[in-house]
Amino acid sequence: MKCELISVGTELLVGDTLNTNVQFLSRELSLLGIPVYFHTTVGDNPKRLEEAVRIAFNRSDLIITTGGLGPTQDDLTKEVIAELFKKKLIQDEKTKEDLLQYFVNREFTMTPNNLKQTFIPESAEILFNPCGTAPGILLKEQGRMIIMLPGPPREMTRVFEEAVLPILKHDNNQLVISRYYNLSDIGESAAEDRLLDLIDTQVNPTIATYAKMGEVLIRITANGNDENEMNALLDHYEEIMLSRFEDNIFSFSKDSLQITVCKLLLEKNITLATAESCTGGLIASQVTEYPGISKIFGTGLVTYSNEAKINLLGIKKETLDTYGAVSNETAIEMCENLQKISQAMLCVSVTGIAGPDGGSAEKPVGLVYIGVCFDGKTDVYHYHFNGDRKVVQQKTANKVFHLIRKTIVDKSK
Amino acid sequence: MKCELISVGTELLVGDTLNTNVQFLSRELSLLGIPVYFHTTVGDNPKRLEEAVRIAFNRSDLIITTGGLGPTQDDLTKEVIAELFKKKLIQDEKTKEDLLQYFVNREFTMTPNNLKQTFIPESAEILFNPCGTAPGILLKEQGRMIIMLPGPPREMTRVFEEAVLPILKHDNNQLVISRYYNLSDIGESAAEDRLLDLIDTQVNPTIATYAKMGEVLIRITANGNDENEMNALLDHYEEIMLSRFEDNIFSFSKDSLQITVCKLLLEKNITLATAESCTGGLIASQVTEYPGISKIFGTGLVTYSNEAKINLLGIKKETLDTYGAVSNETAIEMCENLQKISQAMLCVSVTGIAGPDGGSAEKPVGLVYIGVCFDGKTDVYHYHFNGDRKVVQQKTANKVFHLIRKTIVDKSK
Repeated sequence: MKCELISVGTELLVGDTLNTNVQFLSRELSLLGIPVYFHTTVGDNPKRLEEAVRIAFNRSDLIITTGGLGPTQDDLTKEVIAELFKKKLIQDEKTKEDLLQYFVNREFTMTPNNLKQTFIPESAEILFNPCGTAPGILLKEQGRMIIMLPGPPREMTRVFEEAVLPILKHDNNQLVISRYYNLSDIGESAAEDRLLDLIDTQVNPTIATYAKMGEVLIRITANGNDENEMNALLDHYEEIMLSRFEDNIFSFSKDSLQITVCKLLLEKNITLATAESCTGGLIASQVTEYPGISKIFGTGLVTYSNEAKINLLGIKKETLDTYGAVSNETAIEMCENLQKISQAMLCVSVTGIAGPDGGSAEKPVGLVYIGVCFDGKTDVYHYHFNGDRKVVQQKTANKVFHLIRKTIVDKSK
Repeated sequence: MKCELISVGTELLVGDTLNTNVQFLSRELSLLGIPVYFHTTVGDNPKRLEEAVRIAFNRSDLIITTGGLGPTQDDLTKEVIAELFKKKLIQDEKTKEDLLQYFVNREFTMTPNNLKQTFIPESAEILFNPCGTAPGILLKEQGRMIIMLPGPPREMTRVFEEAVLPILKHDNNQLVISRYYNLSDIGESAAEDRLLDLIDTQVNPTIATYAKMGEVLIRITANGNDENEMNALLDHYEEIMLSRFEDNIFSFSKDSLQITVCKLLLEKNITLATAESCTGGLIASQVTEYPGISKIFGTGLVTYSNEAKINLLGIKKETLDTYGAVSNETAIEMCENLQKISQAMLCVSVTGIAGPDGGSAEKPVGLVYIGVCFDGKTDVYHYHFNGDRKVVQQKTANKVFHLIRKTIVDKSK
C-alpha cells in the first residue's frame, strides 16, 4: 500500500503556517509499515487541487488530505474530490445533529455556512471529529482509498487516532513493533558504522538512526503477524545492540539524556549541585526543566567571573593566577568547594572557553574542563569541542549529563 | 513567475524531520511577490525524484529544491536533475579549493566521498555555501530556473539569503524594503487588533506579524521601483507604529528580546547578576549565550531549595517561614542580598511555582514574583502565567528580560 499526503491551504504556500500535519501523519504511517512516497501541498484553488489529487490517484493506493473541510467558501477539498469522482454531495442527518449539538454544548451561535460541513459525498464513510465541526471523510474508489481530514492539527490528530488508525490497522493486517536505544558519547556516523552489516542487508527488522546533538537514537522495527516471533527477532537484535553499544546506551526509550539522568538521580535519591562557568546556567536550567527535581537539586552556581569564583566558591586566587580559570586545577577546586557549600552527593563543575573570543594557542576556543565529585572522589575530564558558542555550550552540557550517568552507573557496578 | 518547492529526503517522508525549509522559502518568496503554487516532498529515490522534477518543470517557472546535495550515496538531487536535462557533471576547481579549506579550518579529516560535492552540472552557476560543504546550484533550462539548495536549514537559509535573494530580486525587477518592529509585553492577537484597520486594507506596504513566546515581530514591507518613495511610505507607517506601540517596541530589527537586552547592558556598561529559583538558571543561561557578555555578567545563583536561599543568599529563615519562598518579601530579599553579594548594578530575582505540582489555592501553579533592584531601588512584580512547566519557566524568563529593559529605559527618560 503506497501512500501520498496532500495538504490543502494557501496559508501553507505563503509560509504563514508550519506544516506539522505531514510530519505527524508520516510518522504514524511509517510505524504502521505503510510507506509514504510523496507529500504535496496546494492552495485553496480548485484547479490545482484537482491536479494534485489526480496525480496522486495515479500513483498511490492511499491518499490522505488535510485541510479544506471547513465552513467557508475557501474550503474546497470535499467539493473538488466529489466532482472529480462524480459523486453527489448529500446532507448527512447524523452529522447535522452532531453539529447542532456542538454549538449548543459550547454556547456558540451557529452561522448558516456551518451547514456546508454536513454534506458528504455519496457512498463515503464519515470519520467522527470529536473536537471540531468538520468530520473526516473516507472514500473508496477503484480499489484506492481517499481519506480527508480537517486541517487544524488538534482535530486532525484526534480523527486520525480514533477513526483512521483502526481502519488502516485492519486493512494493513500487519503488526509493527519498535524498540528504541538511545546512545550518548558516540556520533551518528560512528554508530552507523558499527551497524553497517545489519543496515546494508536489512529487510525485517529495519534499523533507523536519528541524531540529536549529543545523542543518537536507534529504532529497530519488526513487521509481521506473529507477536511472539517478532519479539524473538527483536530480542536477538537487542543482544547485538547490547554487545556493540554497552557503554553508550543510556535509555531503552526515546527519553533524552537529560531526562534519563534526572530520572536516575531521583530514583537513586542522589542529590546534585552544579557550578558553571562557560555554560552559564545551562546545565542547571536543563536539570530544573524536569518536574519534581527539587527533591534532589537545590543549588546551582554560575560563577562566570573570576571574582564570583573567588567570592562564591572560595577558589584560591593563587589557583586562578597560576593555572588560569580554564584549567584542571580550577575545575577540581570548583567541584570540591561546591561539595562543601552544597553538601550535595554529586557535584559537577564546568569551566571552559565557549568563544568566539578568549581563546589562545595554548587554550583554544572549545577547550572545556568538567569536574565530577562523587563519593569522596573527584575526576576531571577535558574536551575540545568544535562549533560556535552555543554549540560548545550545548555539547558541554550534554557531556556533563553523560558523565553524571557514567559516574553513577560505574559506581553501582 | 510561478514557483514550486521540492523537498528531497526520506527523513521527511517517515516523519523524522519537520519541514521548516518550505515555510521559510514560502514566506521569503511571498514577500518578493513570487507566488508558490505547490510544495512537493520526495524521498531519496531517483525515479520518484525525477518524476517530481518533471511534473514541476511542466507547470512552474522557478523550481527550488532543498536537500540531497550532500556527500553520501543517498544524495541524488544534482545527479537526477543533471541526468534529466542531459548535463554532464564537471568538477569545479574553486568549489574543490573551498571544500579543502573548509576541512583545514575545522581541523576535520575529509573523507573521499566529500569530493562528490565539487561536481556541478555543466553550464550551472554555483551558489556559495558559507557554512557547509555542499554549495547551492542554479541551472537555467528552457527559460525556467532550477535552484538546488542544501537541506540543513542553517545552510539553506544562508545560501538563500546571500546568493539566491539577489538573483530573484534582480529577475523580479522590483525593489522590496522591509522594516521590523519587535514587541514585548503584548500578545499577537492584541497587536494585530491594533493594526486591523491597516491589515484589512493592506496592498502596499504589506504587514505581517510573527509570534514567538513573549515577542511579536511585525514586518512592514514596501514593494516598488522608487527607493525614496518607498522609504517615505515606510516612514509614514513607522510613525503609526510608534504611536500605537510606543511601550512595546524593544527593537527595530529581528533581534530577540534577550539579544536586545544583552546589547543594551553592554552598551550602557551596566553589570547584571541573577538569583533564580523557579527558572533554575534559564535566565543566566540565556544571558551567557551572548558573546562577550562576561564584561557585564559575573554572578548567577540558582537557589532552588530553601537551604540554598538561606546559605547562599542569606535569606532570613523567618521570611521563608512567614511569607513562603514564593512571595513578595522573599523576592525583595533575594534581590537586595544578591546586590550585596555580587555588587552588580542591576540585580534580578525570581521565585515562583513552575508546576505541575507545588501549587495551592492561595499560590497556584504559574504564580511568579520577579524582583528588580537598580539604582538603590527594588521593585517587585508578580504574574500568573498559564502553561506547562517549561512554558511557565520560559514566560518568566521573557518577562525578566522585558523588565530589565524597561527599568533601564525608564531610568534614562
